[in-house]
Amino acid sequence: MGLIVAKFGGSSVASMDRIKAIADRVKSMRENGNDVVVVVSAMGDTTDDLIELALETGPDRNHREMDMLLATGEQQSAALLALCLNNIDCPALSLCGWQAGITSDNNHSKARIIDIEPQRIIKEIEAGKVVVVAGFQAVTEQGDITTLGRGGSDTSAVALAASLGAERCQIFTDVNGVYTADPRVVTEARQLSSVSYEEMLELASLGALVMQPRAVEFAMLYQVEVEVGNSFKNETGTIITGVVNMEKHRIVTGVAHDLNVVRFAIFDVPDKPGVAKKLFKALAEAGINVDMVIQSAMRDNRNDIAFTTEENELQKTIPIVEKLVQDIGASGMTCGTNVAKVSIVGAGMQSNPGVAATMFEALADEEINIHMISTSEIKVSCIIDQERIKDAVRSLHKKFSLDLAD
Amino acid sequence: MGLIVAKFGGSSVASMDRIKAIADRVKSMRENGNDVVVVVSAMGDTTDDLIELALETGPDRNHREMDMLLATGEQQSAALLALCLNNIDCPALSLCGWQAGITSDNNHSKARIIDIEPQRIIKEIEAGKVVVVAGFQAVTEQGDITTLGRGGSDTSAVALAASLGAERCQIFTDVNGVYTADPRVVTEARQLSSVSYEEMLELASLGALVMQPRAVEFAMLYQVEVEVGNSFKNETGTIITGVVNMEKHRIVTGVAHDLNVVRFAIFDVPDKPGVAKKLFKALAEAGINVDMVIQSAMRDNRNDIAFTTEENELQKTIPIVEKLVQDIGASGMTCGTNVAKVSIVGAGMQSNPGVAATMFEALADEEINIHMISTSEIKVSCIIDQERIKDAVRSLHKKFSLDLAD
Repeated sequence: MGLIVAKFGGSSVASMDRIKAIADRVKSMRENGNDVVVVVSAMGDTTDDLIELALETGPDRNHREMDMLLATGEQQSAALLALCLNNIDCPALSLCGWQAGITSDNNHSKARIIDIEPQRIIKEIEAGKVVVVAGFQAVTEQGDITTLGRGGSDTSAVALAASLGAERCQIFTDVNGVYTADPRVVTEARQLSSVSYEEMLELASLGALVMQPRAVEFAMLYQVEVEVGNSFKNETGTIITGVVNMEKHRIVTGVAHDLNVVRFAIFDVPDKPGVAKKLFKALAEAGINVDMVIQSAMRDNRNDIAFTTEENELQKTIPIVEKLVQDIGASGMTCGTNVAKVSIVGAGMQSNPGVAATMFEALADEEINIHMISTSEIKVSCIIDQERIKDAVRSLHKKFSLDLAD
Repeated sequence: MGLIVAKFGGSSVASMDRIKAIADRVKSMRENGNDVVVVVSAMGDTTDDLIELALETGPDRNHREMDMLLATGEQQSAALLALCLNNIDCPALSLCGWQAGITSDNNHSKARIIDIEPQRIIKEIEAGKVVVVAGFQAVTEQGDITTLGRGGSDTSAVALAASLGAERCQIFTDVNGVYTADPRVVTEARQLSSVSYEEMLELASLGALVMQPRAVEFAMLYQVEVEVGNSFKNETGTIITGVVNMEKHRIVTGVAHDLNVVRFAIFDVPDKPGVAKKLFKALAEAGINVDMVIQSAMRDNRNDIAFTTEENELQKTIPIVEKLVQDIGASGMTCGTNVAKVSIVGAGMQSNPGVAATMFEALADEEINIHMISTSEIKVSCIIDQERIKDAVRSLHKKFSLDLAD
């Protein structure tokens, strides 16, 4: 057969029993004639426990040293899985990021992979071994250990699959795959057999966090076909791939929602060049990610500006906005966390101009008020009252017939 | 001033409070104008906890993977100490063995350092940083992580001190230094201000395990002056050095004792060439370390052979000896754990032939029976009944006036 890169997340390696179950699964992949490279996250709470220890060292968190500390979690689970595999007569060897040839920039704690030199991995595969790579970590050209940010093991797996020209990249997690909506909200939600990279990106960044968005970007860039599936079940997951031919008739693929939203509004902003720049530059410098932005129609040479950001940025954002209101001579501001975002995502909507209208109609039928709207080529998002979010998701799921099989 | 290499053992880094105390200590070394390289062991029980996890993976212990697993302990404590130091405005950076340029052979789990390329350490020192090196670990030329065996952090420290041409190598542990005898046995036992490498080797391997014997060998080979002291106190420890001029009048330096002894005797061994070889080859092949050996005077062309080994080798040794008794036609064997070893050690005894006689006299005065005797240039050891060991240590300590200040 071919080469499989299989990634197992933190909950899949949370205990020795689970690590042993993974070892059995990997062994059967081998017995089916595949070469296997496994990428593992740290065991269960290891990373959080290490962060807790680091908190005790004082207020300053040196990112280089944090990476040095946190990288040990994946090294441990990689070594333990290799020990398990050897114990069931499946020759295996573990490698840290630096041993696997994964180099990154030196942006500690959220480094980006810049190259993979997989000679050592290839040598061990050719020697008949399963190679277990510690995910989430890399090394700089200067020889410092870096980590790739939360969920970075997904990126490790996709990057290795690309570099090794793997047949398949399987991301094993604790969900069955990607759904048309959150099954906890919509009981009729269906698991998708496939989604495109672009759809997955929109779905992932909208809250269906089965896979790190950067890993999806990487997969798209290098055209790596990824399967997301449940590590505790032996069923087919969702394939994330380029053009999804078999479902091309589908206009909307899924409904995503996100409660982690706070909405800011600034009133009576003077209509002068550079005002918006001033605001968003100040927010960017503070590391605050702005999601949606709306500038209302001019009225007496004064505008209203509204934007959303993540709820945990609330306290950081307020003083920045308050200062700006004074600086630019606006009349005031408000902010509210009682809102949520609902989005429809689908590659098919690019050629179907009526999709947004259908969405608004569905929300209107439910008497759900829309506060903000933003659209992209394959997504329409609305900010609505948080208390109506479940109604919105259910009505949209029904309106676009997502409960019906392809 | 100069460059200090300071090693802190597992009990010195057992908790965050202790790591913080070490950070304060290191900072004050810096403030006294020294450059500092710190070598740390893993926190308290970390290594044992990891070994416990590994035991769950199955009966086979792949040494390469064990090293991969265990090396994380030191990496964690190194990163945590560096975080602490940065938090008290003492710029610091941690390095794994491979980053510190410490290469070893590939004898996993008990690798030997073959080279240190300290360029990275030197660069960071020149940049004004304290460098915290994870002890106990190295890397092979093939890029695999190795560990140096229990207590290997001592060897890391001495090797780094040699390689960096350090002014001093300080081994901080949970004892004050090297004593003339075990203070729990002899209340008058005195801390030695200095001992020679050779004496330290004899004392260490005889039970005064304040420092890994291999680290002492390394120090002797590269003439690194080592100070062993208490990490919880701010007092001078014991200097381990080449020629100890200031105490040259001293004939006996210390009295060591060891309860971890089992004594075997084989009776009526035919006096044929190759019999002893057969026995000790079989023991060596089973990895059993033999300490003392005595072959009694010939009687009717038959000998008695007695030897000692560590008590925990008892069960492994018995069947080997029993088989040999049959093979060579000896009349039988006995073994006993109710014995112990007492030794006097001192570089001065080389030129003082009466020392052994004085020892035997002291034991005779106490009516302590001697079962076996062995001597080296700077040591005389006797096997006696275990129940008399404290009396023996105390009488020898007194006989050689070790309670009197130099």
